[in-house]
Amino acid sequence: MEKNSVGLVETKYFNFDELILDCGVTIAPVTIAYETYGKLNSEKDNAVLIEHALTGDAHAAGEHKDEEKSGWWDTMIGPGKAFDTEKYFIVCSNVIGGCKGSTGPSSINPKTKKPYALDFPVITIADMVRAQKKLIDYLGIKKLLSVVGGSMGGMQVLQWITSNPTSVASLIPIATTVKHSPQQIAFSEVGRQAVMSDPDWRDGNYYGVSFPTSGLSVARMIGHITYMSDISMAEKFGRRSKENKPVFKFDPNFEVEGYLKYRGENFVKRFDANSYLYITKALDLFDLAGNKKLHQVFNGLKAKLLILSFKSDWLYPSYQSKEIVKACKLAGVDATYCEIFSTYGHDAFLLEIEEETHLIKYFLERVTKSKM
Amino acid sequence: MEKNSVGLVETKYFNFDELILDCGVTIAPVTIAYETYGKLNSEKDNAVLIEHALTGDAHAAGEHKDEEKSGWWDTMIGPGKAFDTEKYFIVCSNVIGGCKGSTGPSSINPKTKKPYALDFPVITIADMVRAQKKLIDYLGIKKLLSVVGGSMGGMQVLQWITSNPTSVASLIPIATTVKHSPQQIAFSEVGRQAVMSDPDWRDGNYYGVSFPTSGLSVARMIGHITYMSDISMAEKFGRRSKENKPVFKFDPNFEVEGYLKYRGENFVKRFDANSYLYITKALDLFDLAGNKKLHQVFNGLKAKLLILSFKSDWLYPSYQSKEIVKACKLAGVDATYCEIFSTYGHDAFLLEIEEETHLIKYFLERVTKSKM
Repeated sequence: MEKNSVGLVETKYFNFDELILDCGVTIAPVTIAYETYGKLNSEKDNAVLIEHALTGDAHAAGEHKDEEKSGWWDTMIGPGKAFDTEKYFIVCSNVIGGCKGSTGPSSINPKTKKPYALDFPVITIADMVRAQKKLIDYLGIKKLLSVVGGSMGGMQVLQWITSNPTSVASLIPIATTVKHSPQQIAFSEVGRQAVMSDPDWRDGNYYGVSFPTSGLSVARMIGHITYMSDISMAEKFGRRSKENKPVFKFDPNFEVEGYLKYRGENFVKRFDANSYLYITKALDLFDLAGNKKLHQVFNGLKAKLLILSFKSDWLYPSYQSKEIVKACKLAGVDATYCEIFSTYGHDAFLLEIEEETHLIKYFLERVTKSKM
Repeated sequence: MEKNSVGLVETKYFNFDELILDCGVTIAPVTIAYETYGKLNSEKDNAVLIEHALTGDAHAAGEHKDEEKSGWWDTMIGPGKAFDTEKYFIVCSNVIGGCKGSTGPSSINPKTKKPYALDFPVITIADMVRAQKKLIDYLGIKKLLSVVGGSMGGMQVLQWITSNPTSVASLIPIATTVKHSPQQIAFSEVGRQAVMSDPDWRDGNYYGVSFPTSGLSVARMIGHITYMSDISMAEKFGRRSKENKPVFKFDPNFEVEGYLKYRGENFVKRFDANSYLYITKALDLFDLAGNKKLHQVFNGLKAKLLILSFKSDWLYPSYQSKEIVKACKLAGVDATYCEIFSTYGHDAFLLEIEEETHLIKYFLERVTKSKM
């Protein structure tokens, strides 16, 4: 184990009676999977909520017993790290609609004693935040020091502004947007079509029968292309041939093909296809301002913002982050923006640790001080 | 019919005994579907060969009897147009491996009396040009005034340099590359995986039994995203909702989703899934210079080049065209380059007619004059 690791951790489960969703439907009961690292101080004002991206989970840092892999943002969370567990109490929970311990389409529907499948109601980013707020209340936290996340995590961060503006001292939306562009919707939709056109999807009723392996795998391959950049792919793979010569005509010839296929095939072992549909739909439906002007959403907000984007990220391009910055400035909100130079594309928010650490560490110190 | 149309046209078929392919296999016999517009002059030096892109065909201009749609580059070919049929003799043929009249995987294999399916050998861009050269010889043309094409058409244009450098007076590669980047390979591969993971593909033996409709449709949807740009999608669709409210949870909510689904579903009516596999593989395998330095390919070339790219084209970005320009300059080849401002993305080569017309018209006049 790495010396600055938070060490062995366990996923915990918070159960509550019901959650009324944006669509008007109530799900009951509800479980939210979550992990915490560090200690909540006596004033209960050092808590940072970490929001995960599309296929993430509550396991953000440290290690689970009998598992080799560390949490998905382990490089950022731990003693002395960006989210310093000697100073802050870190919380990360799995989103509602997910498949990593929180209630979602693969959970048992108490009415039928079978998995919800497509009887699970449509969920939104606001619903995800609604469930998190219950967890935060349960943990006794009145005001979060910060809410932070990249990609879909960043959308949840922004959603706190309209859902619970006085419950946050600061917000760190990374590589994200206030609403999907048609290109982003298009990539989501192709992924969904890939899943739904797999006969093993069976209109969502595949649990215990089959699994839309090839459809979800294709969806994930598309995703992976959009998470990398033209340059990062060129640097990582070039046009290198696969080590093993293709046997069949349409076997992968190039390393990049083999890599994508491998990533696609691995993904299906750890993610539920229906959750993929529900969560990508939530991404597409997210529209922070709706009919309002964007700066109106930020009017009167006391929380400070640190907004980060990455130069080679073409899935959530910097211009989308700059729209947030502009709205903050128009509303007189304290906002700092940095476009980090990186060739990693959208994946940069998981990889550009040094720059992110520097910026976030300083920002959190500033937020902490200004509270005193 | 539009007044500058070439009018009613018919696809013709050129049959020849055999074609030895790059992979060493011979296909026999071979049919090449083609169309011609305008008249070959007595010197036979006014012929322009048009090369189509991935899903194009020989029907580049004019109209077929009982069909409403004009040829795919009708805006560019006709009296007074960029490829002025009062001056030039225009030839366009369907590529080998295709499904629009030329021999391909859906053609009958004379040995088995059944469609080739995956018994069809792997083809390359050089094989496509090899077949075209036979057609050009058959038409009695010793030297083409120009070879022109966008996207995969541009790769064929470039291939003439290594295959038949003395048979061309000029070349116009548009929105193309000397070799696919790993990102381009990745998009091809995901499309192929979508087709091959459709159970109706049946290892390619679907003829007369089924058709991998959903797989090929997903592949086409992915393609369409890459042919447009972030901006052109924003301009065309924004986040407008579909007129008909979705009935089912995962029906399209947004116009862009409905559009892509429609384009995908329409495509499968007109294109063979195996051809899609063979042709995209040919694209990925194309590598004009191979182990040579790129400028060495251009050394000693007498033909003039006009190289065009489009600012918002992120599938075949301008830097790939600039590599061609640089190699031409290093080799002392007469090359003109223009990056056309456009928001249309890769599709621009089919849409930026005014600018292309201006540039190509002048270029062809210059080439014609320099021959005298």
